[in-house]
Amino acid sequence: MKKYYLMAPGPTPVPSQVLLAMARPIIHHRTAEYEALFADVREGLKWLVQTGQETMVLAASGTGGMEAAVTNTLSPGDQALVIRAGKFGERWGEILKAFGVQVIALDAPFGQTVPAERVADALKKTPDIRTVFCQHSETSTGVLHDVQGYAAATRQSEAILVVDTVSSLGVADLPTDAWGVDLVVSGSQKGLMLPPGLAFCALSDKAWARVKQAKLPRYYFDLLEEKKAVAKNQAHFTPAVSLVVGLREVLRMLRAEGLENIWKRHDRLARATRAGVEALGLELFAKATPSPAITAVVSPAGMDGEKIVSTYARSHNITIAGGQGDMKGKVFRLGHMGYVSDFDVLVALGALEQVLAELGYPVHWGSAVGAAQKVLAERPS
Amino acid sequence: MKKYYLMAPGPTPVPSQVLLAMARPIIHHRTAEYEALFADVREGLKWLVQTGQETMVLAASGTGGMEAAVTNTLSPGDQALVIRAGKFGERWGEILKAFGVQVIALDAPFGQTVPAERVADALKKTPDIRTVFCQHSETSTGVLHDVQGYAAATRQSEAILVVDTVSSLGVADLPTDAWGVDLVVSGSQKGLMLPPGLAFCALSDKAWARVKQAKLPRYYFDLLEEKKAVAKNQAHFTPAVSLVVGLREVLRMLRAEGLENIWKRHDRLARATRAGVEALGLELFAKATPSPAITAVVSPAGMDGEKIVSTYARSHNITIAGGQGDMKGKVFRLGHMGYVSDFDVLVALGALEQVLAELGYPVHWGSAVGAAQKVLAERPS
Repeated sequence: MKKYYLMAPGPTPVPSQVLLAMARPIIHHRTAEYEALFADVREGLKWLVQTGQETMVLAASGTGGMEAAVTNTLSPGDQALVIRAGKFGERWGEILKAFGVQVIALDAPFGQTVPAERVADALKKTPDIRTVFCQHSETSTGVLHDVQGYAAATRQSEAILVVDTVSSLGVADLPTDAWGVDLVVSGSQKGLMLPPGLAFCALSDKAWARVKQAKLPRYYFDLLEEKKAVAKNQAHFTPAVSLVVGLREVLRMLRAEGLENIWKRHDRLARATRAGVEALGLELFAKATPSPAITAVVSPAGMDGEKIVSTYARSHNITIAGGQGDMKGKVFRLGHMGYVSDFDVLVALGALEQVLAELGYPVHWGSAVGAAQKVLAERPS
Repeated sequence: MKKYYLMAPGPTPVPSQVLLAMARPIIHHRTAEYEALFADVREGLKWLVQTGQETMVLAASGTGGMEAAVTNTLSPGDQALVIRAGKFGERWGEILKAFGVQVIALDAPFGQTVPAERVADALKKTPDIRTVFCQHSETSTGVLHDVQGYAAATRQSEAILVVDTVSSLGVADLPTDAWGVDLVVSGSQKGLMLPPGLAFCALSDKAWARVKQAKLPRYYFDLLEEKKAVAKNQAHFTPAVSLVVGLREVLRMLRAEGLENIWKRHDRLARATRAGVEALGLELFAKATPSPAITAVVSPAGMDGEKIVSTYARSHNITIAGGQGDMKGKVFRLGHMGYVSDFDVLVALGALEQVLAELGYPVHWGSAVGAAQKVLAERPS
C-alpha cells in the first residue's frame, strides 16, 4: 500500500465524484437527457471561459483543438505570427507548417517570454499577418505569457489572436471578451480535472467572420458545422458522451468555488511550491511571470532531471514530469492545477526533499515544506 | 422506476465492469503502468482486427478516423472510388471533397449494395484510382457490403481498399490480412461497448507505403508520427486514457468469448430481430445482405418513423434510432451489437409490439417475440 499521487502537469487527478458520474450508464446523444446535459455544459463553459460566445466541444485532445484553430481561420499561403518560447509554441508553428501557412516566429529562450511590444511591432511591420498564435500558460516552461498585452496589440490590427489555454483554463484568469481574445483553445485534462479526450474552441465574432473566409481543408474539425449543431443544442459528430457527463460535474464544482477563489487557490499553490523549491537552493526555470499551473525547476548541477522524475516514481509512487525536447534532463516539473489542495503542495515538496537527499543533494529537512507552510498560512487581509 | 434500455445503433450499452474500470483513479500516459496497459491493448487489437499490423488508437470519434484514412493516403487532385449506398458512404465523399480529392462514386439506392464487379470495372476503366472507400456495415441502412469482393477486386489494381468498420468491428467477421483489406477504420462506441471518443486505424504494408507518398495536409491525425510513437509503446499526443483503460477490459471480455462466438451471437441476434419484425408484417429496409449489427425497418404505411422512435422513448424509456437524412421518418433502426444478449431482443420486440399497437397498427400479441424465440432456441448442430 503505497498511496499513489498524480502531480504532473496533466493529466491531473480526477475527483472521485466525477469518476463516479462518468461511470453511470451511458446515455445516447440524440435524447432529451443529453440535450439537458449539454445545455448545462454550454452555460458553464460561457461562465468559465468568460465569454458570451458558445464554446465548441470536440472529441479530441488539446492538439486537435489547436489544429481546429489553425484550419478554421487561415487559407493556404497566409501569414501567421507565433509566440514561440516553449514546446507548445513550437507546436503552433508545426501545425501551421503542416497546413502550408507562412510562419513568422517571435522567439524567446525557453523559460522567458515575448513582450507585447514585439507583437505590436511585428504586426506593424507585416500588416498582412492574419492570425497571432500564443499560449497563455506554456506548460513546457512554466511561464505565463502576457495575453492581455498581445490582445491589446492585436486589436490594433486586422489580425485575430488565438490563445492556447490548455493549462490555464480554470487555473489563471483570462477574461476572454474583456481582453478581446478572439479564439480560446483548451483541453479537458488539466485545470478541468477530467480525463483527456475533450478539446474546446470559443470564438469571437471577429474570429467567426474569419472562419467563413478560411480555405484550409477541414472536416472533422469544421467549426462552422459544429456551430450549426450547437445552435440546435447538439454535437455535429458523436460526442465523447462520458467526458461531457464528467464536464457537467466539474463545472458544478468550479462554480461552487467561484472564479476569484479558483485564481487565488492556484496562485497560492504556485507561490507555496516556488517558495519551497527556492528554500532548497534550487533555481526556477521561469525567468518571466511564472504560471500558476505548473512549476518548472532547473535540475541541480550534475543531477539528471529524469533521475529526479524516476526517483519520485520508484521511491514514492508519485508521478511528476521531466523536461520536454531540449529541456529533457535539465528540468523537472511539478503540476499544481485542478483538483489540488494546499496540503498536496506539502506532499510534493516533502517528496522533493526525500528525492534530492536520496540522490545525494544536501537537504535541510523541512526547509521546503516549511517555506511552503509560511505561504499557505497567509490569510486574506 | 422505469428501467432504461439503450438499443440504438451506437453508442451501445457499456458493461458495468467496464464503467467501473474507467472510474479507477486516472493514470498518467508516460508511466510504466500505462505502457503495460497499452501493450495489452495493442495485442488485443491485433487479435480483434485480425491483422499482424499495429492499430493506431486516436482520441477522436469514428469520423476522425475516417478523416485520418483520407488525409494519410491521398494527395490533392487524386482520384478515389467511393461505394455510396448510405449516409456513411456519403460521408466518405464529403471528407474527400473537403480535402480536394476527386470522387468517383459507385452509387446504389439506400438499402441496397454495390456488387464487387462494379468495383472491378471501375478500377479497370480508371486505373489512376488511388483508393477505394467503403463501409463494411452501413449503419444508416443496415446493409453489410461485400468487403471480401471489393478487396479481391482492389488487389488486382494499384489502389488500396479503406473500410469503415465502425459498426462491424467486434460484430461481423472481417479477416483483415486474409482478405487483403489495406486500411481498417473503426470507433469505440458500437461493437466495442465503450463510450465514444476513440477511433482506430490499422494499415497494411501497401497502405503504409502510400502514407509516405500522401501529400494532403495533416497534423493531429498524422499516422506516420503515431506509428513511430506506437513503436515505442506510446501515443503521439495525449491519449484518451480512461477510454483506453476501458478498452483493455472490453478486449478481455471479447477474447473470453472468442471470435467465432462473437460472430455467431450477433448473427443470431440479428436473425431473431428480423424474424420478429417480419412476423409483424413489417418490411426490412435492407434489400441486400443485412448487417448483423443493426436492423433497419421500413415504417408501416402512413406511420411516421420518428413517432415510433419517440413512442419507444416516452412509453417505454427505450432509445432506438430513426432514419438519417432522406430516410428520416421512413425507417426506424434497432441496434443489436455489443453488450447485447438473446433476451434483449425480446425486450426490443416486445416493446415494438406495444409501440405499434399504441400507434394504431394491428398487432397479434406475441407474434414478434414468438418468432424471435424460435430463432433463439436453435442449438448449434
